[in-house]
Amino acid sequence: MMPPFGLLHRRAWASLFGQLLRPSGLVCIGEVHFHSQVSEAVLISQLKPHQEKSNFVIKTPKGTRDLSPQQMVVREKILDMVIDCFKRHGAKRLDTPAFELKEMLTEKYGEDSGLIYDLKDQGGELLSLRYDLTVPFARYLAMNKVKRMKRYQVGKVWRRESPTIVQGRYREFCQCDFDIAGQFDPMIPDAECLKIMCEVLSGLQLGDFLIKVNDRRILDGILAVCAVPQSKFHAICSSIDKLDKIPWKDVRHEMVAKKGLAPEVADRIGDYVQRHGGVSLVEEMFQDSRLSQNKQALEGLGDLRLLFEYLTLFGIAEKISFDLSLARGLDYYTGVIYEAVLLQTPAQAEECLNVGSVAAGGRYDGLVGVFDPKGHTVPCVGLSIGVERIFAILEERMKTAGLKIRTTETQVFVATPQKNFLHERLKLISELWDAGIKAELLYKNNPKLLTQLHYCEHMGIPLVVIIGEQELKEGVIKLRSVASREEVAIKRENLVAEIQKKLSES
Amino acid sequence: MMPPFGLLHRRAWASLFGQLLRPSGLVCIGEVHFHSQVSEAVLISQLKPHQEKSNFVIKTPKGTRDLSPQQMVVREKILDMVIDCFKRHGAKRLDTPAFELKEMLTEKYGEDSGLIYDLKDQGGELLSLRYDLTVPFARYLAMNKVKRMKRYQVGKVWRRESPTIVQGRYREFCQCDFDIAGQFDPMIPDAECLKIMCEVLSGLQLGDFLIKVNDRRILDGILAVCAVPQSKFHAICSSIDKLDKIPWKDVRHEMVAKKGLAPEVADRIGDYVQRHGGVSLVEEMFQDSRLSQNKQALEGLGDLRLLFEYLTLFGIAEKISFDLSLARGLDYYTGVIYEAVLLQTPAQAEECLNVGSVAAGGRYDGLVGVFDPKGHTVPCVGLSIGVERIFAILEERMKTAGLKIRTTETQVFVATPQKNFLHERLKLISELWDAGIKAELLYKNNPKLLTQLHYCEHMGIPLVVIIGEQELKEGVIKLRSVASREEVAIKRENLVAEIQKKLSES
Repeated sequence: MMPPFGLLHRRAWASLFGQLLRPSGLVCIGEVHFHSQVSEAVLISQLKPHQEKSNFVIKTPKGTRDLSPQQMVVREKILDMVIDCFKRHGAKRLDTPAFELKEMLTEKYGEDSGLIYDLKDQGGELLSLRYDLTVPFARYLAMNKVKRMKRYQVGKVWRRESPTIVQGRYREFCQCDFDIAGQFDPMIPDAECLKIMCEVLSGLQLGDFLIKVNDRRILDGILAVCAVPQSKFHAICSSIDKLDKIPWKDVRHEMVAKKGLAPEVADRIGDYVQRHGGVSLVEEMFQDSRLSQNKQALEGLGDLRLLFEYLTLFGIAEKISFDLSLARGLDYYTGVIYEAVLLQTPAQAEECLNVGSVAAGGRYDGLVGVFDPKGHTVPCVGLSIGVERIFAILEERMKTAGLKIRTTETQVFVATPQKNFLHERLKLISELWDAGIKAELLYKNNPKLLTQLHYCEHMGIPLVVIIGEQELKEGVIKLRSVASREEVAIKRENLVAEIQKKLSES
Repeated sequence: MMPPFGLLHRRAWASLFGQLLRPSGLVCIGEVHFHSQVSEAVLISQLKPHQEKSNFVIKTPKGTRDLSPQQMVVREKILDMVIDCFKRHGAKRLDTPAFELKEMLTEKYGEDSGLIYDLKDQGGELLSLRYDLTVPFARYLAMNKVKRMKRYQVGKVWRRESPTIVQGRYREFCQCDFDIAGQFDPMIPDAECLKIMCEVLSGLQLGDFLIKVNDRRILDGILAVCAVPQSKFHAICSSIDKLDKIPWKDVRHEMVAKKGLAPEVADRIGDYVQRHGGVSLVEEMFQDSRLSQNKQALEGLGDLRLLFEYLTLFGIAEKISFDLSLARGLDYYTGVIYEAVLLQTPAQAEECLNVGSVAAGGRYDGLVGVFDPKGHTVPCVGLSIGVERIFAILEERMKTAGLKIRTTETQVFVATPQKNFLHERLKLISELWDAGIKAELLYKNNPKLLTQLHYCEHMGIPLVVIIGEQELKEGVIKLRSVASREEVAIKRENLVAEIQKKLSES
């Protein structure tokens, strides 16, 4: 059992979204689709219509998308919770440019390097869009000679993958990274990274999850003691990494038939990489006659033993599985690696979503040294939250529940039942804005009262102030609750105070 | 005088930053610059050091920069205030990809089109990084057939300008845009845009400012009645636009000598574009014998007359100057245009900063139609806040004042005076995190107490919980206030409650 997370509970998903969601089925005023003619004013600008060109298709680039206001509300709530957690662990925020010098990114991402977006050579430097937030962070540390830093970064990254949008994968997506850089006593920062992953995933109430843990040195040790030729390490690792998607016999076939491994070597590997378990498996591996001969593997096992000790103190040990098949693709990892997966889809309707890993990370002690002019390095460990996938799950869940999201925060609508009251409405709304009240009106000289009230219902605006000739004469304003349809007359000079009182009550 | 802005006042700059700033002069523990050797673990990864390459320089791309945690704190506060204002006016948030199909951006930005970053052709679509947030918004409206929307968007845009970094201009920078799309009665949304600019600039307490207003149709009318050949409109407009930086005689010289205008035509233009004033200048222009013959100019003047009427109701008319020289470079404007400038630098030290315009916008009624397959258009008006320049001003101001910013929000530090207390510290901090308390400890098995207390002072952490053998035996914890150095013993089981009480008091 996870211990309860006070802050996260208080901000639990249901109650958090309770403020934003309204049951569907409200009377909706459809979007008004009028088609005005191209106005004369267009002639003033120098614009050439796209329609005159052949093959004109209006779209976003392949693998990218706009995020609608509804989507932005959900996304912002997720990001807020993730950032809250990062701050709870003392991290500072950093930002780096969207692109880097091309050479900063080369030879960091293994087989995936072909997915990097390059910018066109327009004279000057050769540039590439960032592929993750880890390499820019390491570049930042080396460039500024920073030897210690706990930082988080939230931003878009770009990868030219063939977009399998059903899985929530895009070519442009957001990452939320937390990293600890510095020379510290072993496994304390590493354990904190796993704790953070647990807090985020529990806080977002995504359902049950598991974090697979392994160590690059153990994996390398296994390949060494199984007598895999050094030159094949990379290729065999990437086969092993597929074990979470395809069965061992297929992985074995790939190793033997495609990658030229001797069958008995493959079988020896199979004995190891099909195993997973808790801290007891770490102890078992310590006793393994072959693996215990390998120095690297022993170092990795020693660190994992210590890691489990700390994870137990954090109360999260049973969320962690020592999984000998976990390999992780990126070139820069040097020690502990981990990946969080959701154990089941929490509702029937979400079965079609194969979300895979929702958070991952590891230790990369060599990356900063690669950038440092003298090769001085700074050990680092970190994690990345896969917010796009989390976002896809929650969006699907909300669709299933038939929930509708408020996309604005407007508190008060300024209405009139009468003609020629625009001036009064403008004066009044200006007063509300200046008092910090979120307010709207219709941009019409003479809107119908019913249209104005429908707008409030449609948009979920809770209060309406109504001003007409009668009210103007009496120096009052009508304040109407949209939900109850109750109206009270209040003195004009008390308007702001009364609204603030009403808003603080609700 | 501006009316007071309740919300903005409550969140006024000084008090807002009061929570973040500490006077400089605190004892600072310098960054620890140790140089560990490249560890053995590096060998596991496949990374090739950059140092082995010739001409290795570690840097960010030309015209871009990292934002340090200190800078991020200031930036986030500015963005929060801007977004607060946008929400107060009922806007929804939208996000669009960082790049668009190249053809979406071509022929929208006039002479500046050469500044667009293109992506390399790696097979597939031709792409460009977005140059502003306005064209993507218009593309979004046309693509989704949205006929009405009040949206804001905050995001980076990219322009290949020769970076004059002293002026706070970069090739990558953040924009905050608010736009109102839809067919409405004239000048009501336009007036709201100007109101928003006033609220943002007042709220940020940047000092006195002025918003210059003009109309594209008036400018075109002036050129027409002065007998400027249609083919020269563009070139002459861009000369006029320089009047805020260079005197009329130099602008006139450019028109005549470089752009081939007859001297008497230039003089006629000069009679108009050197004028600026309030609503009375609008009336004066209505009486102008030549201009009053031009249909476009009359339309523009009529709209400005109405605009000033609404601005008076909003209480901001005297912040607005009808300035006949304002032209704005972008191709897509069709009606009212505006630009906010700071009137003076508020402190001596900031004189070196030429900040120029800090917000700008206008009406673009034709842009959506350019994207719509059938040419149907949606009238739009909007504004963009130049947050980079505002950021540069505030950063400079804080530097002058010698203020230091807290870059983390950590509330409690977990310390021990004794050796071998890591397990107790880990259990304790885990409890705090789970209760939502922002907490840190040193990643050392046996840190010195003085080092731990210095860390708190250096980082501005207000509370320390101290656990040692004595406390463990008695079932208590010491809670220490870093500022007063007072310590109280509290029961272990009351720890979270006591801390939360203490934090709510401060």
